[in-house]
Amino acid sequence: MSDFRQQALDYHSKPTPGKICIALSKPAESVTDLALAYSPGVAEPVREIAADPDAAYKYTGKGNLVAVISNGTAILGLGNLGPLASKPVMEGKALLFKRFANIDSIDIEVKHTTTEEFINTVASIADTFGGINLEDIKAPECFEIEQELIKRCSIPVFHDDQHGTAIVTAAGMLNALEIQGKSIGEATIVCLGAGAAATACMQLLVKCGAKRERIYMLDRQGVIHTCRDELTFHKKLFANNTDKRTLEDALDGADVFIGVSGPNLLPPEALKLMAPNPIVFACSNPDPEIKPELAHAVRDDLIMATGRSDYPNQVNNVLCFPFIFRGALDVRASQINDEMKIAAVDAIRNIAKEEVSKEVLAASNIGSLSFGKDYIIPKPMDPRLLKRVALAVAQAAIDSGVTAFKELPPGYMQD
Amino acid sequence: MSDFRQQALDYHSKPTPGKICIALSKPAESVTDLALAYSPGVAEPVREIAADPDAAYKYTGKGNLVAVISNGTAILGLGNLGPLASKPVMEGKALLFKRFANIDSIDIEVKHTTTEEFINTVASIADTFGGINLEDIKAPECFEIEQELIKRCSIPVFHDDQHGTAIVTAAGMLNALEIQGKSIGEATIVCLGAGAAATACMQLLVKCGAKRERIYMLDRQGVIHTCRDELTFHKKLFANNTDKRTLEDALDGADVFIGVSGPNLLPPEALKLMAPNPIVFACSNPDPEIKPELAHAVRDDLIMATGRSDYPNQVNNVLCFPFIFRGALDVRASQINDEMKIAAVDAIRNIAKEEVSKEVLAASNIGSLSFGKDYIIPKPMDPRLLKRVALAVAQAAIDSGVTAFKELPPGYMQD
Repeated sequence: MSDFRQQALDYHSKPTPGKICIALSKPAESVTDLALAYSPGVAEPVREIAADPDAAYKYTGKGNLVAVISNGTAILGLGNLGPLASKPVMEGKALLFKRFANIDSIDIEVKHTTTEEFINTVASIADTFGGINLEDIKAPECFEIEQELIKRCSIPVFHDDQHGTAIVTAAGMLNALEIQGKSIGEATIVCLGAGAAATACMQLLVKCGAKRERIYMLDRQGVIHTCRDELTFHKKLFANNTDKRTLEDALDGADVFIGVSGPNLLPPEALKLMAPNPIVFACSNPDPEIKPELAHAVRDDLIMATGRSDYPNQVNNVLCFPFIFRGALDVRASQINDEMKIAAVDAIRNIAKEEVSKEVLAASNIGSLSFGKDYIIPKPMDPRLLKRVALAVAQAAIDSGVTAFKELPPGYMQD
Repeated sequence: MSDFRQQALDYHSKPTPGKICIALSKPAESVTDLALAYSPGVAEPVREIAADPDAAYKYTGKGNLVAVISNGTAILGLGNLGPLASKPVMEGKALLFKRFANIDSIDIEVKHTTTEEFINTVASIADTFGGINLEDIKAPECFEIEQELIKRCSIPVFHDDQHGTAIVTAAGMLNALEIQGKSIGEATIVCLGAGAAATACMQLLVKCGAKRERIYMLDRQGVIHTCRDELTFHKKLFANNTDKRTLEDALDGADVFIGVSGPNLLPPEALKLMAPNPIVFACSNPDPEIKPELAHAVRDDLIMATGRSDYPNQVNNVLCFPFIFRGALDVRASQINDEMKIAAVDAIRNIAKEEVSKEVLAASNIGSLSFGKDYIIPKPMDPRLLKRVALAVAQAAIDSGVTAFKELPPGYMQD
């Protein structure tokens, strides 16, 4: 067994199983404490909530509680291993919510036979929480599940594999385009992969200005084009009226390659076909579509990003999901809409463009970095993310009218 | 607003809403920590659990995690106020699980239309947890819900309003009978109330030796007897072939009164009808069926218990549920069966009969008490409860074959 494998198993099993637990946020020692926390005192907040459901945000943990929910049908890159096997990942996500944004988060693994059953189960328990983060649910079911739950729940429902990935990808991509002197409206974009993340990335890039007709999306059968008649609803959205068929056809003259597919699927030779100053996001994890050292050997005018922490420009969802939920929860947004997603994109990309102050450097281990080909996107440990992203998202929620809040709480996310 | 009411609302809202939160049980500071807790390290426990579901107990928090689940149809004595209004109570229960038995516990409030829908929802999410505590679900639905979930889940499912109440009542009752020189097999028992708690109390007393034909159960229509034809399944279990009709008829010569009904429903005059050395458990909360001072004024040969902490002999579920789950979880029992419940009864009653050591006194604020009319049952803060009850329950689970454990873990619950 490799050292890392053993270390990972030890981390999860010793000294106690798992990595999150419950703690008390109020005193519970004396008889008086317990009389307030439970019977008879607890009857008072019960009555308040029965009279006004909004009081749940005042007297319970609901407003700071996010459920991380999965059915285990698409766990990491490992596939459909069932709900129980997804539990370490969901607990990990809960850990990240707490670590990065002080959001209380609990995992729920759902066993079900039909998509409808999954939706019904989550909708039934949704009032328990202030928000729902869907995770590791396979396409195309994930689209219907998220859309239906957004309709049925009055709290934010967010499928992170779609939108978290899309937001961080868009932030990095807009910065990379700026550095390479390209405009998003004129860029030709090749997307290898047509699952949940790929679809959400392309949809968000379109909202950021990309032209649908300049996007070539590929699944296992090659380019998705309008003459193919077996396409699912979400693939049809990106069917291109083109005679390009192969990855090489698509890459010929392209400005951008985005891989959300599998390891080593981009041959170094094919990179040579791309336009000058190309951008390659090889986000397959842990093994990217092309290794950065191979890509750089073929193209020295390249900007390259991956999902890995051991190369520059890591596309990591943790740059987004804790903070977008922080902002949404703090103004009790009823959903996370496009305006909030784009506000998150802008906030994230602006952090990378801003000089890192001595204070931030002292408070983190992100190192001294300047905006450029090897630093298009902030580091996960950047302490500016919490305030900037949450603030931008909360403000966008207010401006777009998905909250009863008319303005930010006084001093919100100010130093 | 009364002081206590304001204090209870402040406790729940200040400085932060609610009373439980999530904490991390593993380090999550460095990049290395996060690589172990989440991607890529988390893939290792995922693979282990996919290969062997039991590994979830080794690598995740499942084995120490209890869901407190309600639909809010019978909240405390307040009635059907809906799932959201029950949240403070469920969070309170979670707080008690942590405080008394170090069990991680999270509340889930379920919105549903049919009983079947509630059952399906809970069964779908059950694998997330190591046990399920059902709470504040009204009768008669609670019976079907619990029975069906026990069948469908491989983890303990326990409706505390039924069995927690029954176990603590039985422990106190057996001690009271001993002090009054009565045998359970010969005692005539009047039970005012015919809901979930009443039914479970009577069922458990029968298992402890009470004779079904000596039990008179009363609902709002009076004594439940065999000539009534509108009885639900659970009331039928205690229909008595008798011509007694009123509470006074039933109390005439009775040894025991158990009230799980409502405030002031036992008139002091009626107490005079009972046999010498009677036992009165007036468990309606917060206002008992009869005030202890009124009862003692009428009968000086009485043993009296209530649900209140400000009188002697408090019948409080917290004497049982944290510890019965502790024992069940620690040997991974697949259910909480009658053997385990009776083991809990015996462990609880024996604590009250045992002299309180100086060590226990020093470690608690239970005061110096000796077994007798004013001390038939331990105090909630008694530090002996955890070890004694959990040990007895775990051993009973092993002896009755509802766990794969062949013996207790070495040194389990020893000093």
